Order: sequence, then C-alpha cells, then structure tokens
Amino acid sequence: MQGKRIFVLKANKARTDHKFHLKGLPSTGGRMDIVCRCISRALLYYGNEIREDTVFYAVLLGPPNPPKTIRIDGSRVKSLGADEISIGKMIREALKRCRGNVGEEVLVGVSVTQMSFQDLVESFAKKGCHLIYLHESGEDIRKTTFFAKDIYVFVLGDHIGLNDFDERLLDGLGAVKISVSPKSLLGSHCIAIVHNELDRRFSARSSSL
Amino acid sequence: MQGKRIFVLKANKARTDHKFHLKGLPSTGGRMDIVCRCISRALLYYGNEIREDTVFYAVLLGPPNPPKTIRIDGSRVKSLGADEISIGKMIREALKRCRGNVGEEVLVGVSVTQMSFQDLVESFAKKGCHLIYLHESGEDIRKTTFFAKDIYVFVLGDHIGLNDFDERLLDGLGAVKISVSPKSLLGSHCIAIVHNELDRRFSARSSSL
Repeated sequence: MQGKRIFVLKANKARTDHKFHLKGLPSTGGRMDIVCRCISRALLYYGNEIREDTVFYAVLLGPPNPPKTIRIDGSRVKSLGADEISIGKMIREALKRCRGNVGEEVLVGVSVTQMSFQDLVESFAKKGCHLIYLHESGEDIRKTTFFAKDIYVFVLGDHIGLNDFDERLLDGLGAVKISVSPKSLLGSHCIAIVHNELDRRFSARSSSL
Repeated sequence: MQGKRIFVLKANKARTDHKFHLKGLPSTGGRMDIVCRCISRALLYYGNEIREDTVFYAVLLGPPNPPKTIRIDGSRVKSLGADEISIGKMIREALKRCRGNVGEEVLVGVSVTQMSFQDLVESFAKKGCHLIYLHESGEDIRKTTFFAKDIYVFVLGDHIGLNDFDERLLDGLGAVKISVSPKSLLGSHCIAIVHNELDRRFSARSSSL
C-alpha cells in the first residue's frame, strides 16, 4: 500500500442497500450524488484514465442497514465513468452483490464491508498511515510536508460533516487538520485540490511547472 | 462585470435542444454530463452557496441546431443543485424555452443565444478581458500574475478539446496559455484548481492560510 493516496468520505445519510433511483441520487440515495462526485474526483484523470495510486472509501450510514463501507481500489478497477449515473450504477450493483461482512470483491476493484467509520480510521492509524482531516481551520496544505513513500489518508465529511465524537476520535489518533482553501468548499473540490498539491510535489513535471 | 471570473467550455458534441435523457447525459446528451459537472464546479461553494463572482458559458455544438451558447450568471441564479441531474434539468428547460437569438433570460440568471465560440471569445477580447486558455503546456498558474479588478476568461475544452482553428483564434486574440497541473485533468478539476488559486490570492484568508 506504500505511496498510496487514500480518501475516506463519511456519508451520513447514504443508503446502505441498492434500492435507490439513479435519477434520484440526492433524494432516494441519501445524497449518494456526493459519494459519486467524490469517487469521480478521487479516481479519474482526463480521458477517464484511472489514478492507480488512489483508494477511495465511502462509509455509508443511511438506512436500512448501516454501516456499509465501500472500498474502490484505483489499482484494480478496470473502467470508471466520470458521470454520477455511471458511478451510481456501480455502487448499486456493489450493494446488491454484497453478502455479510466478508470484504471480498463484489466487482473488480470494489469491495463492501460492514466496517464503521471508527473501525476504518483506527485500522489506518494502526498501519502507520498519516491521518489528515480536511477542515477549514487546519494548516494550509501548501505549507504541509508530505513524503513520497508515506501513506496519507484524507478524511472528509459530506453535507452534514463529522460530529464531535468523530473529531475527538481523529484527534486521539493523531490526525492533523489541513485546509485546502480560504473558502468552504464541496468535498469533491477538496479532493481535486489535494490531488493537485500532491501531483505537483511528486509527479514528473512538465517543462513549465 | 469588473472582478468577475468567467469560464467558457467548448462542448463539441453537446445537444442543442432539450431532447436528451437525464439518465443518459453522456450518450443522449452528447457528453452533457461534462457541461453539468463544469457548471457545478464553477458556480458552487459548500452548501450549494453560489459563487456570485462567476459567470459560466457553455458553447454547445451538437445536433440539431448548433451553436447554442448557454450563459449562467452566478450573481443572478437563485438556486443550483450540485448534482448532474439537477443541472441537466436546468439546461433542458433553458433549451426548451429559448427562441431565436435574443439572449433574454429564459430562467433567472440563465440565457441562451446562438453565439459561436469565435463570436464569444472575440467579444471578450473586445471588452478588454484577459483570455486564458487552460492547457497543459502553459505557464504554471501559481506563477501567473492576476489583478483583483481585472476580468479573466478561462477557456477550456471538453473530452475532444479545442481544434487548431480555435487555438490560432485564441492566439490571435492574445490569449495566454496557463497550466494548472503536471497531469492531464478533467475540465471540472481544472475549474476547481483555478478557483482555488484565485480564492487564495483575493479572498479574506482564514487565520491559517
């Protein structure tokens, strides 16, 4: 997992079975549109090329059977549409196929478990990953030191955000608060900015950058 | 219009009437999903608050009646969903209501004309706006000087991009090529990064930025 970028989205209302409508991702899906946008932003370059260095987790906490944690591994997924409907279809199929808490892949590169948000972030802390909580009050990402071979786990909230318990949990695990903008941004924008900062630090540069 | 940020998307295949399906934005809409994502990224903060300083233009060039240019003015639009389906609905309604080339608002803050890409960028050049072509080979945006009171027009392509004629046109109008990343990114990601750079330069900063 060395050198990976990991994003964790806490989706407080997102439905935990496949019974939502693709045309109603915000309503019937419990803001599943946010999950879809974040996946698109986290895992895709131009031309729908997949970011193989990135793994995305969404912790779904809506009805009927929370929690469900979807994991999408950019190094294994073969194709991914950038649009919300395509990604919504993939999530629906993954939720339809999952059985219990086995964590096996239900689609290539996609697995579903019943891990809670707490279990997930604690598991990253135990593995020695750097936990980063994307928050307006944090240190500017441009002033933050990143090491190419370390694993960074960026935690972000949906429209509701993280609660006090989550924040204390992250604090207790040594998470660092980092800000990407002087403005309050949608989670999917934050992901684009995080990738941009790390791409600038660690990618082969074009002549002008 | 002073101090505005303007984005222009050339949407080479996007349908120019309302006869596309919301569940089929990429196919029946001629990659209308790209238009929707760029609008969402250009005009929204967190909590669906609208960026009043931003105007977005999409030049639609698909069948049956190109060109159609949609203009969405952040200072006038009252509400905007962040999800592709909501924005697709708005575009469909605007295309349904537009009649001829009058440029009147068909929805609050939304107007449609038959301006071509060339007419549009030439009109900005005549008004003294700074034309910027977002392109990988350009100067790094972090090294670019921006003035708070000037008007910047950021031009970007869709999955097909701009052709040689467009590029020569922009060059002839004094457009500057600017790059946002060492990687090839989706247009909607580029918009998020442009906003971030300008927000950092010109917004009231939080204590940590």
